Amino acid sequence: MQVTKIVNGVDLDRLVATITAVNADPALAHFQFRTGTQWLDGGHSRTTIKEFFGVGQEDTARTAAFVVDTDEPPVLLGHDAAPNAGEYLLHALAACLTGSIVYHAAARGIVLDGLECTLEGDIDLRGFLGLDDDVRPGFQNIRATIRASGAFDDAQLAELGELTRYSPIRDVVSNPVPVAIDVIRA
Amino acid sequence: MQVTKIVNGVDLDRLVATITAVNADPALAHFQFRTGTQWLDGGHSRTTIKEFFGVGQEDTARTAAFVVDTDEPPVLLGHDAAPNAGEYLLHALAACLTGSIVYHAAARGIVLDGLECTLEGDIDLRGFLGLDDDVRPGFQNIRATIRASGAFDDAQLAELGELTRYSPIRDVVSNPVPVAIDVIRA
Repeated sequence: MQVTKIVNGVDLDRLVATITAVNADPALAHFQFRTGTQWLDGGHSRTTIKEFFGVGQEDTARTAAFVVDTDEPPVLLGHDAAPNAGEYLLHALAACLTGSIVYHAAARGIVLDGLECTLEGDIDLRGFLGLDDDVRPGFQNIRATIRASGAFDDAQLAELGELTRYSPIRDVVSNPVPVAIDVIRA
Repeated sequence: MQVTKIVNGVDLDRLVATITAVNADPALAHFQFRTGTQWLDGGHSRTTIKEFFGVGQEDTARTAAFVVDTDEPPVLLGHDAAPNAGEYLLHALAACLTGSIVYHAAARGIVLDGLECTLEGDIDLRGFLGLDDDVRPGFQNIRATIRASGAFDDAQLAELGELTRYSPIRDVVSNPVPVAIDVIRA
């Protein structure tokens, strides 16, 4: 009889197997994610997401690409066909905070019934427009409110907040990442 | 007769009007973007994107919310229902680099025929898994290749690369943003 131990929708046996494999061979921990974005018109572009590298090989499980559009709302001279890049940044951070809590809570046996993550981020458009060199183009600050429900005590509730330290996108937003940009003729 | 000056799909008269308005009243430059993310199961969550504040008021133009799912591929214990948070981060950066070049090129009269932006980002999973405190959870580095076509000279091609300094998400990824996180009981 096979017993599968699933907590918060996470297969703990597979999680432990992943950790064991990575501990035995750290090279397996190297992941490379990739996106391809095509400009359509004005603020409207389209990103295709499919291939990635991880656990020592190119992924072969994904059979179709994900397609994600970006646009700007009318007040930012777009046609509102899709969220804008700032909203996608908040989305990426929120999804990552959520997933990081869920996985690490599972590993600690903290069972969640629900998790909601609300984000707000403030931007001063003068940075993007180049009107004031003292104003950064990006978010000046971001606030996340995470509402969790489940049969956990107050100490475990506090622990859930600590688990966000493992979030890759929290790290990317909070700390510098080197970005190399090459612009070439097509 | 009304003459509309559109370059790269960007309405230049409206762009100039926006810059003029923000210069006259910098408070109009304050934007706040927001997302709401609900955990579904395991690595699967769903983000709703609708309301934002900008140009001195709550937006009323968006009549429906955008809904964006996140999941993990099987090798990261998900069901591959959607891109993961790392891929969305790259997508947000690529869309922002693209849009920033397009808008600022339009303002400078550089006409683009096409723009494609390919991104790669490297992550060492030991950071997320908490296996090595010396390994950051987030991307260790990101490389962007932008292929541009149009009737511009080599000096203008180089200028396109410089325009990415106005990209809000390039700033967010390259420089620290304060992130406040509250975890509360639902």
